[in-house]
Amino acid sequence: MIRIAVDAMGGDIGPSVTIPASLAFLDGHPDAALVVVGQPEAFEAQPLYARLQAHPRCQIVAASEVVTMDDPIEIALRRKKNSSMRVAVNQVKDGVAQAAVSAGNTGALMAIARYVLKTLDGIDRPAIATQLPNAAGGATTVLDLGANVDCTEDHLLQFAVMGSALVAAITSNPAPSVGLLNIGEEAIKGSETIKKAGELLRSASNSGDLNFYGNVEGNDIFKGTTDIVVCDGFVGNVALKASEGLASMIGGFIKAEFSRNILTKIAAIIAYPVLTAFKNRVDHRRYNGAALLGLQGLVFKSHGSADAFAFERALNRAYDAARNNLLERVRERIAHAAPLLVAAQAAPTVGASAAAVSADAAA
Amino acid sequence: MIRIAVDAMGGDIGPSVTIPASLAFLDGHPDAALVVVGQPEAFEAQPLYARLQAHPRCQIVAASEVVTMDDPIEIALRRKKNSSMRVAVNQVKDGVAQAAVSAGNTGALMAIARYVLKTLDGIDRPAIATQLPNAAGGATTVLDLGANVDCTEDHLLQFAVMGSALVAAITSNPAPSVGLLNIGEEAIKGSETIKKAGELLRSASNSGDLNFYGNVEGNDIFKGTTDIVVCDGFVGNVALKASEGLASMIGGFIKAEFSRNILTKIAAIIAYPVLTAFKNRVDHRRYNGAALLGLQGLVFKSHGSADAFAFERALNRAYDAARNNLLERVRERIAHAAPLLVAAQAAPTVGASAAAVSADAAA
Repeated sequence: MIRIAVDAMGGDIGPSVTIPASLAFLDGHPDAALVVVGQPEAFEAQPLYARLQAHPRCQIVAASEVVTMDDPIEIALRRKKNSSMRVAVNQVKDGVAQAAVSAGNTGALMAIARYVLKTLDGIDRPAIATQLPNAAGGATTVLDLGANVDCTEDHLLQFAVMGSALVAAITSNPAPSVGLLNIGEEAIKGSETIKKAGELLRSASNSGDLNFYGNVEGNDIFKGTTDIVVCDGFVGNVALKASEGLASMIGGFIKAEFSRNILTKIAAIIAYPVLTAFKNRVDHRRYNGAALLGLQGLVFKSHGSADAFAFERALNRAYDAARNNLLERVRERIAHAAPLLVAAQAAPTVGASAAAVSADAAA
Repeated sequence: MIRIAVDAMGGDIGPSVTIPASLAFLDGHPDAALVVVGQPEAFEAQPLYARLQAHPRCQIVAASEVVTMDDPIEIALRRKKNSSMRVAVNQVKDGVAQAAVSAGNTGALMAIARYVLKTLDGIDRPAIATQLPNAAGGATTVLDLGANVDCTEDHLLQFAVMGSALVAAITSNPAPSVGLLNIGEEAIKGSETIKKAGELLRSASNSGDLNFYGNVEGNDIFKGTTDIVVCDGFVGNVALKASEGLASMIGGFIKAEFSRNILTKIAAIIAYPVLTAFKNRVDHRRYNGAALLGLQGLVFKSHGSADAFAFERALNRAYDAARNNLLERVRERIAHAAPLLVAAQAAPTVGASAAAVSADAAA
């Protein structure tokens, strides 16, 4: 039995999304159970709550507080110790649940998860990994997506190792390929940090710790050139949000062109099945559920504006990760890569603009 | 009379694109002239060349060499002194032309332009600025796009000042708004460099040197939140290429869904006018022609794979910039902002990961 803890209060919407999604998830997974955490008075208002409460594989746990989307990390971490987010993560720490899912404030979730669960040995900074659809018909896993700005080369190596464990756990591919996001394919491109990261990733590839493809560029994320794309959290966040902005603009343009006049509206009706198929294909809700990697426990972040369909996908993702022992896989891979990670950390870490350390030192 | 120098050999395609585009440009601009630079033997093979050669406002200048897309910068700069790219840029230096346009190798073009023309006083590094369509129906100017990795806060300020001059020159807006690309809207977000850049941009806004909006996120580029988005070249390059990759994936999906079977193909025929209108709206060729800013002369870079329509757009852009005195405008804005730029440069510059310098020092 896989048990998932749900922060049912998190996100822009809360129980009206998380309660139906939890019920649908339980119906779809006969070997799964849920611990649904939140304010009972908020739950009572939900029409489906009675069914969820009565479900044999669902346990309701009360939490008196809610971390809001605007709460500073300090408030979430120090003042709201009985928040639904914190209590959900505690279920993982206490071994009650194998994973926690929240649609709440990303910064708060990362801070609470890190404080409660601690990082794995060999990991300096947890990372956020998400999947994006690609033209090859699959999905590209991209990390980091916002947790870490100013990454050093050893952080990027840690991300690559953790991302490989994630993709190996949720697909049948034991050696997923890793691309290092850069501004050109040649190894001489990019900042000093990126060049050093390239050398480290090549060493890790040589020692069998990962399957390094080489440098990739922004378009390779959506081409599907590699299974995994590694970058610092600043670049990853910008690339993800720029893509969201572009997708939203294109969707708006399509809608505007088909609504222009009576003829285009007729065309829209005729093209409706095709447009629906297209929409499903690029539906970002299908990819909802980002993994917080590098912690001593599994935590998944749903998009704050997720609807019930999207939130259920995040629950599925947490379930798949738990069932496929993602935590153990990350731990093993990190342990295997430990000599390399230690060597990288022993070398003086350089900032993105400092070039004082010779490029060989870290290899 | 505005005279533009054309590197007619550059790009993936060369004269079969540049010759028809040059002719179309001359036909559309009665007050413009061209200096078309390249290998006469390559030109002779083009059916439209005889017309171009005979055009009263076109001068053909022979250049014996061509910078290839793969040429290292050193080769382009030191070994090919009679390349069409170099000779075209020389026309600007010698005052024969007011701007040069090339679809060649970006790195080589930047290096040659910088070597031949030199940077403006107060500018450390030239930047590449391009326009992207936005949901507001206009275009967002983004810089830098690949010329500079590891930017300091004063580089970002220089980009903001130059971008403002560019947008003011080509639109009727004298005070275009500037956003600083970050991973959150709050001023406390991002790396040390970004935070310091935010302070510098606020100071520049207070002293009337630019119209600073504040931090923006990746999606704001396509929302059109600000007229200009400033970022380092690494981030800008990744965001641009990720967007290109996504747009290409979406285009492929639309095509695939409409080609699925006989019914969807009929739907495609009926929806054809709408799909064409949509395609025109997101046609990246319309936005072809990136400005190399910060040089003592105007140089525009066309996409390497530009067709004749796209290359003509790049010529138009160079023409608009020259006609609107972009060079003088950049020079004036930089001079006006000089006290701030000097103060920024006098303060110890810090790398992206170093936080040793207090955040106040640069303000």
